[in-house]
Amino acid sequence: MISIDAMGGDHGVDTTVPASLDCLRNNPALQLILVGDEQVLQPLLETAMLEFKGRLSIQHASEQVEMHESPAKALRLKKDSSMRVAINLVKDGKADACVSAGNTGALMATAKFVLKMIPGIDRPAIMSSMPSIFGHTHVLDLGANVDSSAEILLQFAIMGTEVVKALEDIAEPKVGLLNIGEEDSKGNEQVKAAAKLLETSDLNYIGYVEGNSLNAGDKKVDLIVCDGFVGNIALKSIEGAAKMITSVMKDAFGKNIFTKCAAIISYPILKAIKNRIDPRLHNGASFLGVKGLVIKSHGGADAIAFKTAIHVAEVEVDKKVIQKISEHVELTLSQRENA
Amino acid sequence: MISIDAMGGDHGVDTTVPASLDCLRNNPALQLILVGDEQVLQPLLETAMLEFKGRLSIQHASEQVEMHESPAKALRLKKDSSMRVAINLVKDGKADACVSAGNTGALMATAKFVLKMIPGIDRPAIMSSMPSIFGHTHVLDLGANVDSSAEILLQFAIMGTEVVKALEDIAEPKVGLLNIGEEDSKGNEQVKAAAKLLETSDLNYIGYVEGNSLNAGDKKVDLIVCDGFVGNIALKSIEGAAKMITSVMKDAFGKNIFTKCAAIISYPILKAIKNRIDPRLHNGASFLGVKGLVIKSHGGADAIAFKTAIHVAEVEVDKKVIQKISEHVELTLSQRENA
Repeated sequence: MISIDAMGGDHGVDTTVPASLDCLRNNPALQLILVGDEQVLQPLLETAMLEFKGRLSIQHASEQVEMHESPAKALRLKKDSSMRVAINLVKDGKADACVSAGNTGALMATAKFVLKMIPGIDRPAIMSSMPSIFGHTHVLDLGANVDSSAEILLQFAIMGTEVVKALEDIAEPKVGLLNIGEEDSKGNEQVKAAAKLLETSDLNYIGYVEGNSLNAGDKKVDLIVCDGFVGNIALKSIEGAAKMITSVMKDAFGKNIFTKCAAIISYPILKAIKNRIDPRLHNGASFLGVKGLVIKSHGGADAIAFKTAIHVAEVEVDKKVIQKISEHVELTLSQRENA
Repeated sequence: MISIDAMGGDHGVDTTVPASLDCLRNNPALQLILVGDEQVLQPLLETAMLEFKGRLSIQHASEQVEMHESPAKALRLKKDSSMRVAINLVKDGKADACVSAGNTGALMATAKFVLKMIPGIDRPAIMSSMPSIFGHTHVLDLGANVDSSAEILLQFAIMGTEVVKALEDIAEPKVGLLNIGEEDSKGNEQVKAAAKLLETSDLNYIGYVEGNSLNAGDKKVDLIVCDGFVGNIALKSIEGAAKMITSVMKDAFGKNIFTKCAAIISYPILKAIKNRIDPRLHNGASFLGVKGLVIKSHGGADAIAFKTAIHVAEVEVDKKVIQKISEHVELTLSQRENA
């Protein structure tokens, strides 16, 4: 059972509803609770509730968190928001995971407040995947924390490892630490100290990787760990680079009648390129560290992108990611006590 | 007069010599000293020295710094390297600037040791420009320092402002501080403290900018200031994204006979795109903070890219960038004393 914050995101029910129905169609075992204004959802889902009898239900929530609302305010004043109610369902054991395209700060604050942290994890982290030459690379933290200590970076690596195991079916994901060079002497104090912790951990730590490894690493790495300040700036920098290149391509192909003809001829190729680097196919960030699965979709996600986020939730539920993280952290802590 | 480390870079004289000669051809006022092994340079430059009578000379240096040599070792043991001699010429007032494609760490260490720091500047910084939707954006620091304090970020902003004024002919370059959000509450301690210093400075500070502003900012910014750890990771992330997109494009256009035909038809367009985002046209990073102009070319630069680096040196000499930085820092310090 997965709860969906049906009102969240830039497009609300226009994307969450069709995406949810499509997912129910694709996976006959899937069960969804759509959380939001009953009066809005009821008419939209009437037929579907007959089609997916017993697998689709509505949970009423009278409020909704605005995209630019302050997280503290949303947490304090909107106790019946679709986001909050969707997370409550996870806390109460009525849902195994929650998916929201709503306000990132509010979602994180609410998840932390309602679900509480996993024992042994000090800070939450946002983890996502990005397209790379080799398929894709998973990265955390993408902006939940700034000034993360070495110990926190180790916790991120443990959580990320369990997610990559689940999503990619890899036994021992290769973990890299984001740095400004691969030599031991490179980096800030935080990264150097984290490297020491990772070297003695039970993780498959492969060493430092540089920024280009996110999309184009020659040393294949499955998971890249970094502080949220650095991760967020890297992510946004990559988004900016992709946007610039797309804009330059559009200009070049739209310049005159000749280039427009070339664009028509090249259309299937340009489309294939777009699909390959399409961020929508990499939607669905995991909020890690809290006692429950919370998946964040991009706010501007369309139905295709939102479906990807629901799919991430399905897999993480199926592979019992939260339980695996808790066990792994516990093991690490007990090994340290015995050392 | 500009001194060229003729032996530096992955391709040494094969790029530095043709690039130098081309620059002399383009600018009749330019004077160059090529520094390196006389026995190698003499035969290569014999005809050119007649052509550019009085504007081209050779300065012998018996050693050269290898690309992967430790900076400390290069500094201690290679006192007659082409890099060191080229920088010595700046120190002795025989050259106004030095251009090298050699080992970055060694160049920085040598420049700092030989030229010493500008009074009031605590740390050197690497500054470069990158292509953006609006033309290009200047950024520093790209990796000279990690853990830069707020005070050091302010110094970077002052130095960067003077370089942008010189290279772009802008009276008051817009300065942005790289952060993970535009709201005041966002960021780490270092960035928040730097924002306060910048707000009260005489710089044209516009506030926080995010990673996407490097290539695709909607708020037009001329100069982006950040710590070297963050800047280096952003730069490499962008390089990786560009590499991935290029690789995806190559795959897509090379897939079969049809796509190959489309590639031939689209060739001039693809070439225009490549030119627009070509890093070679953005070559020439400034090493700022030392008492003398030192321009770093990419190690793998070809002659076109190396010419761009020489051109950066020409402009910075012409606009007296070092003098301007010194004056600006002095003014800032005296204003603070009087405040």
